[in-house]
Amino acid sequence: MEKDIDFCSYVSGFVDGEGCFSVSFRKLERNNLGIEVRVSFSVAQKKTPVNYVLLQRIRDLFQGGAIRYGKDGCYKYETRALAHIRKNIIPFFLKYPLYTSKASDFEKFCKICSLMAGKQHLNKSGLIQIIDITEGMNPSGIRRLQLAQIRALLEISK
Amino acid sequence: MEKDIDFCSYVSGFVDGEGCFSVSFRKLERNNLGIEVRVSFSVAQKKTPVNYVLLQRIRDLFQGGAIRYGKDGCYKYETRALAHIRKNIIPFFLKYPLYTSKASDFEKFCKICSLMAGKQHLNKSGLIQIIDITEGMNPSGIRRLQLAQIRALLEISK
Repeated sequence: MEKDIDFCSYVSGFVDGEGCFSVSFRKLERNNLGIEVRVSFSVAQKKTPVNYVLLQRIRDLFQGGAIRYGKDGCYKYETRALAHIRKNIIPFFLKYPLYTSKASDFEKFCKICSLMAGKQHLNKSGLIQIIDITEGMNPSGIRRLQLAQIRALLEISK
Repeated sequence: MEKDIDFCSYVSGFVDGEGCFSVSFRKLERNNLGIEVRVSFSVAQKKTPVNYVLLQRIRDLFQGGAIRYGKDGCYKYETRALAHIRKNIIPFFLKYPLYTSKASDFEKFCKICSLMAGKQHLNKSGLIQIIDITEGMNPSGIRRLQLAQIRALLEISK
């Protein structure tokens, strides 16, 4: 089946079509700002045996992450560990870059991961900076409604 | 931007996610069976400048086809010429194969193109064979409602 294909380049194209670099927020009382930032890289495909095999190969390529079966009838490969994303996901897409407008989402995703590595999501100004960056991201990668809610929560917090 | 990427392998992955191999039917009085079979390979992306550049590169790679701006806010690269599909599209995806369940659609698409090259879509038994093959294709690649209509039309035709 391999023939002339370069699997890493294939994955770049596949993710450019089907992948998602997302940043989301949720309330978390034990966090000092009351808000947790979560980053995620995922690829979903409808539930068929061959699609599962492909997602397994992608998981092996990235040496981490997990495949889950979602309620939407799809398999979803996802990794949410910042360390894994910074070590194995970001360098991959710097080497095998995206060509679509998703490249702009990826760029913002990288900035946010870098800020989080510097613990900037744990202070108010850093968190506001992260929220500002997500504003420009693909609507599918961020629930826009939440941003106003998060800003309101931060206004209240000291 | 190129870095380590192999563009052909990238396109295989991108098409595995976003491409569509479709077979459709329409009434055509001047055709002796009253039904025309049409094959199409297409890739659509939302309307952004970088996405247009990518579709241009894909058009250049396949040395044919056209990019149109659809009502759905997307750019669509498409080729419907059987000769072009047989010369430049099918050999490409035999060399750079698909990994998802779309590979099965592609296989059926190849069979139908081959039957059409042998003019089998112009006789009743050949057309029925083509309709049977499309039955198993992705619903997004074929309007299922039409199949019953076509069969009904063929029942009537002598």
